[in-house]
Amino acid sequence: MKLGMIGLGRMGGNMARRLMAGGHEIVAYDRDQAAVDKLVADGATGASSLDDMRSRLGEQAIWWVMLPAGEITEQTVQAIADGGRAGDVVIDGGNSFYKDDIRRAKALREKDIDYVDVGTSGGVWGRERGYCMMIGGREEVLTRLDPIFETLAPGRGDIPRTPYDRPEADDWRAEKGFIHAGPAGSGHFVKMVHNGIEYGLMQAYAEGFDILKSKSSEHLPEDERFDLNLTDIAEVWRRGSVISSWLLDLTAIALAKDGMLEQFTGNVADSGEGQWTIDAAMEEKVPANVLTASLFARYRSRIEHTFGDKVLSAMRFGFGGHTEIPQ
Amino acid sequence: MKLGMIGLGRMGGNMARRLMAGGHEIVAYDRDQAAVDKLVADGATGASSLDDMRSRLGEQAIWWVMLPAGEITEQTVQAIADGGRAGDVVIDGGNSFYKDDIRRAKALREKDIDYVDVGTSGGVWGRERGYCMMIGGREEVLTRLDPIFETLAPGRGDIPRTPYDRPEADDWRAEKGFIHAGPAGSGHFVKMVHNGIEYGLMQAYAEGFDILKSKSSEHLPEDERFDLNLTDIAEVWRRGSVISSWLLDLTAIALAKDGMLEQFTGNVADSGEGQWTIDAAMEEKVPANVLTASLFARYRSRIEHTFGDKVLSAMRFGFGGHTEIPQ
Amino acid sequence: MKLGMIGLGRMGGNMARRLMAGGHEIVAYDRDQAAVDKLVADGATGASSLDDMRSRLGEQAIWWVMLPAGEITEQTVQAIADGGRAGDVVIDGGNSFYKDDIRRAKALREKDIDYVDVGTSGGVWGRERGYCMMIGGREEVLTRLDPIFETLAPGRGDIPRTPYDRPEADDWRAEKGFIHAGPAGSGHFVKMVHNGIEYGLMQAYAEGFDILKSKSSEHLPEDERFDLNLTDIAEVWRRGSVISSWLLDLTAIALAKDGMLEQFTGNVADSGEGQWTIDAAMEEKVPANVLTASLFARYRSRIEHTFGDKVLSAMRFGFGGHTEIPQ
Amino acid sequence: MKLGMIGLGRMGGNMARRLMAGGHEIVAYDRDQAAVDKLVADGATGASSLDDMRSRLGEQAIWWVMLPAGEITEQTVQAIADGGRAGDVVIDGGNSFYKDDIRRAKALREKDIDYVDVGTSGGVWGRERGYCMMIGGREEVLTRLDPIFETLAPGRGDIPRTPYDRPEADDWRAEKGFIHAGPAGSGHFVKMVHNGIEYGLMQAYAEGFDILKSKSSEHLPEDERFDLNLTDIAEVWRRGSVISSWLLDLTAIALAKDGMLEQFTGNVADSGEGQWTIDAAMEEKVPANVLTASLFARYRSRIEHTFGDKVLSAMRFGFGGHTEIPQ
Repeated sequence: MKLGMIGLGRMGGNMARRLMAGGHEIVAYDRDQAAVDKLVADGATGASSLDDMRSRLGEQAIWWVMLPAGEITEQTVQAIADGGRAGDVVIDGGNSFYKDDIRRAKALREKDIDYVDVGTSGGVWGRERGYCMMIGGREEVLTRLDPIFETLAPGRGDIPRTPYDRPEADDWRAEKGFIHAGPAGSGHFVKMVHNGIEYGLMQAYAEGFDILKSKSSEHLPEDERFDLNLTDIAEVWRRGSVISSWLLDLTAIALAKDGMLEQFTGNVADSGEGQWTIDAAMEEKVPANVLTASLFARYRSRIEHTFGDKVLSAMRFGFGGHTEIPQ
Repeated sequence: MKLGMIGLGRMGGNMARRLMAGGHEIVAYDRDQAAVDKLVADGATGASSLDDMRSRLGEQAIWWVMLPAGEITEQTVQAIADGGRAGDVVIDGGNSFYKDDIRRAKALREKDIDYVDVGTSGGVWGRERGYCMMIGGREEVLTRLDPIFETLAPGRGDIPRTPYDRPEADDWRAEKGFIHAGPAGSGHFVKMVHNGIEYGLMQAYAEGFDILKSKSSEHLPEDERFDLNLTDIAEVWRRGSVISSWLLDLTAIALAKDGMLEQFTGNVADSGEGQWTIDAAMEEKVPANVLTASLFARYRSRIEHTFGDKVLSAMRFGFGGHTEIPQ
Repeated sequence: MKLGMIGLGRMGGNMARRLMAGGHEIVAYDRDQAAVDKLVADGATGASSLDDMRSRLGEQAIWWVMLPAGEITEQTVQAIADGGRAGDVVIDGGNSFYKDDIRRAKALREKDIDYVDVGTSGGVWGRERGYCMMIGGREEVLTRLDPIFETLAPGRGDIPRTPYDRPEADDWRAEKGFIHAGPAGSGHFVKMVHNGIEYGLMQAYAEGFDILKSKSSEHLPEDERFDLNLTDIAEVWRRGSVISSWLLDLTAIALAKDGMLEQFTGNVADSGEGQWTIDAAMEEKVPANVLTASLFARYRSRIEHTFGDKVLSAMRFGFGGHTEIPQ
Repeated sequence: MKLGMIGLGRMGGNMARRLMAGGHEIVAYDRDQAAVDKLVADGATGASSLDDMRSRLGEQAIWWVMLPAGEITEQTVQAIADGGRAGDVVIDGGNSFYKDDIRRAKALREKDIDYVDVGTSGGVWGRERGYCMMIGGREEVLTRLDPIFETLAPGRGDIPRTPYDRPEADDWRAEKGFIHAGPAGSGHFVKMVHNGIEYGLMQAYAEGFDILKSKSSEHLPEDERFDLNLTDIAEVWRRGSVISSWLLDLTAIALAKDGMLEQFTGNVADSGEGQWTIDAAMEEKVPANVLTASLFARYRSRIEHTFGDKVLSAMRFGFGGHTEIPQ
């Protein structure tokens, strides 16, 4: 199929290459001409503007927008829609907030343009492993787009099949690594919760490894200290343990390079999706202590001392004359 | 009454003075002779050793041990018991772990020596305001000791009386500022939970003031920023609000000196009691998310970057090639 | 001063009565005519509609809107503004979201109408004790309204003064129980954080009393069980302890009626302000583990079993063949 | 090698069978004669008592104790040691507390008996997949026992190798699925933290799926509701996503049977290891909010209403006259 790819960064560029390798035809655009040139060298058709892309895509155009969530995605979707024709499909493959998807899909429907939101997991490994995709939109549009998604997805591979009490998964796509989650917005919603879970999983490992490492602390009684080899521990847990996972594999890779992780300072970023997951939990009144604590741990990692810490010290000084202890 | 005070630090010394002001007779001992001399100057009888104190206290001696919890308290109680006589009472007014109280009381009972544990709240303000005391031991011994506790306690004062559906509190002592909590160990147990609650209350204020202060952050949209006066806010909350408290009074005092609390670094200490409260919650299978988060916030305040933070960064680098953000 | 009170529920009615007792003139309106009649009997002038109220208030009218946050407050403010005249002041004394205040104030400014938001704490006790108020708006309007706020506020009373390193509080109002927090929206913002702290304080006490109560559990070793009198404990903590507070006073009152609190089921409601506080924390990237855990504890109190619990059981069955334990 | 297996439950029985399949010779004992008979039918030699086992094992006996942690393991280890001979090895393959291991190893060393603690993960799947083992003890003893552990472990299998910056893992065993963690106690310590992490991972998934499921709640605005298929979502996340893991595989299996998990009530048990992990975190002063929240979520799952919830309701009634909301 022919598809316009807008945004040729690490994600968009690699997806375009995987699609071309799968026989699809890519019209490529990026504000950075060098990025376009590189993809053209790999077989894509370059476009010099959205209008140029429109003329190259023809009727019933498929636009894949792969830009950072926020203003730039909003403007691009708007620009495509402004010049769009009935039957066009705009795919937002970035990390947009799902309520923006709901709003955009509604606006585009009035012009008979379809809006499809694709939440994508897989990171920099996706080009090789395939991209896990959670998709929101109308079923009949997805049916049209399935060949694209099948190429991008990891496929069944050698992952053991889940035993169903029915012939197969409810959505045949699930076993190939993508799903039709529901109407517009639901793809990014599922991806958002995916990232919320990701934060929780990561923090669980982080705390565990911290407890292992700190077991050598000289503040402990000498006969209760262990000087544990974290590299070996991550490695062994990959084999037959209940907590084996891809995130653990990545941890093992990092620890195999440096068991002390000294190249990292520990200032951990967070994206919007962690925060939105907590917003969703609060809207639904679902207690989500672990996902929230995981998000807050990241905030805390970037602060030397909170003002709250100082308030505690001030109170302690107030009632007990306690002075602060040196670190 | 006559009473031996062992340990004349900030707490023990002030309690002795409050007792003498109330007409009691104090025999005082401390490893630091200067501390003894100072109390003698204030009217106490000095003792040069535990044995010397024993001879000065006579039969049915009352020993008040006011030392740091741990080894030194353990040894002192042991030493008193070793030379003790039936009818003696050993009071541990420090912050001992309640299971140590249970064990000690059992051992001392075999010699007909009573063991009484007193959990004390009030800090450096106690000499003037009186000490809130939670007491474990046998009722008949408490009856004997009541005159001492009445002198130390704040008394009814001008605090509005709680309307009971019976003539008064179950334990008449409660309205005077001390209670017989139950058998040996229960005094320190109640005090331990008191401190656990204290951590939670403090952290709630700390987080709230942090949110108020950070509302001026330049990362927020300009028309949603407020540059709030924390000093005024603490002051106004003292008057008629639902969250007025003594801890808030102390916060107001600190903020009245410096609204930025710049003299404090924010390295917050924690004593054993916070940790023991969580141990108790786990033994009882009681979820205690707030008390635990409060304790952990203190640990975190003393660490620049946890190893766990680095594990997170390593994973993020692994799956997304994300580099760390500068602080 | 003359002031229109719209909304004569528990809060609005009591505030109107406190204002009249302080010499102010009240024009009263409520959709419920009976509520108007009752206030007229207490000395107010009744109004049959907003238009009627407008004619009775005259030029430079002061409107106090005391309605539930949300649609009804929004519509009422809009209706007042639609017929409003330059120099009018609209006060929102309810629990509106502060971003709504910012938006409304901006819209009303264009008509030279001032918008003032008042966050109020004190609950049903306010009529007697006075209302603690956090106020957002322009200073010159507050100056005009100060006589109203002084009447509503608790005043200095017999609460000990905070020692300042300057003659007095930065805002003279603070010691009287109200403050000018900043521009429109800041009053409700400070009140919102106040409620977030309130949740945290309450949960800290709740967990502590739970740990005390569960210490009698038969799952504990027999010689480590205590059957504690929670009523006495709440009472004694009111006197001289570090954790004395008004919320503890209320807890003591409740426990004085029934130490088991059997009239309560434990389904705990939460208002918008707890959730908004967490939203603010996330916008500011402030870790707020205690305030969040407090909010989530309330959600959890209203759910018999979460779906998450079932997911845990399903996994445990999956890897260990573990069956669920009966409660 | 010849080895005595004591305790033929689900774990011990399956391990014995895997060992026999690998060419080792098993002498089997259990208080339940039927369990012994079954294993004899599978090729083991039965023992009628520990003494009988001793005579069948001969010099330098290897004893594998596979019993529930606690009193029964303690007594059995003691009994073996009482009749033991220099050169014997006692292996505790259960879930003992690591401080018990340290104590036992020290006591047994005095008789020249070695003590080895093996933390085992893999659950009921271990017989087929192999057991992931974390082992504490002296290196020279481990060297002697390696053939046993190699048979029990999963081996390298088809799990992709971690790229080391050295020829291989620090401990050659790690890539085969077992490690020598350190001295006695360290095996169970690492396994304990493993379980702590397991709790955290499970709770992260649990909260995520709860947020997904509750997105269909009728309390949400109608155009923001999604009726998501959790079975498909679990399936798709297994393929190429960042959060794929064995626990997710198990969740997918459960959801493939019933997307509502209706056979489960949600009363989730917890073993000692979750609690001990938090104890270790507190001893080391490591903040572990996620692991703790995971443990507390399990406590909470087994309680209809906490007493703490009632305390909250009582306060709310006290300050606001709020009555409880029905569930």
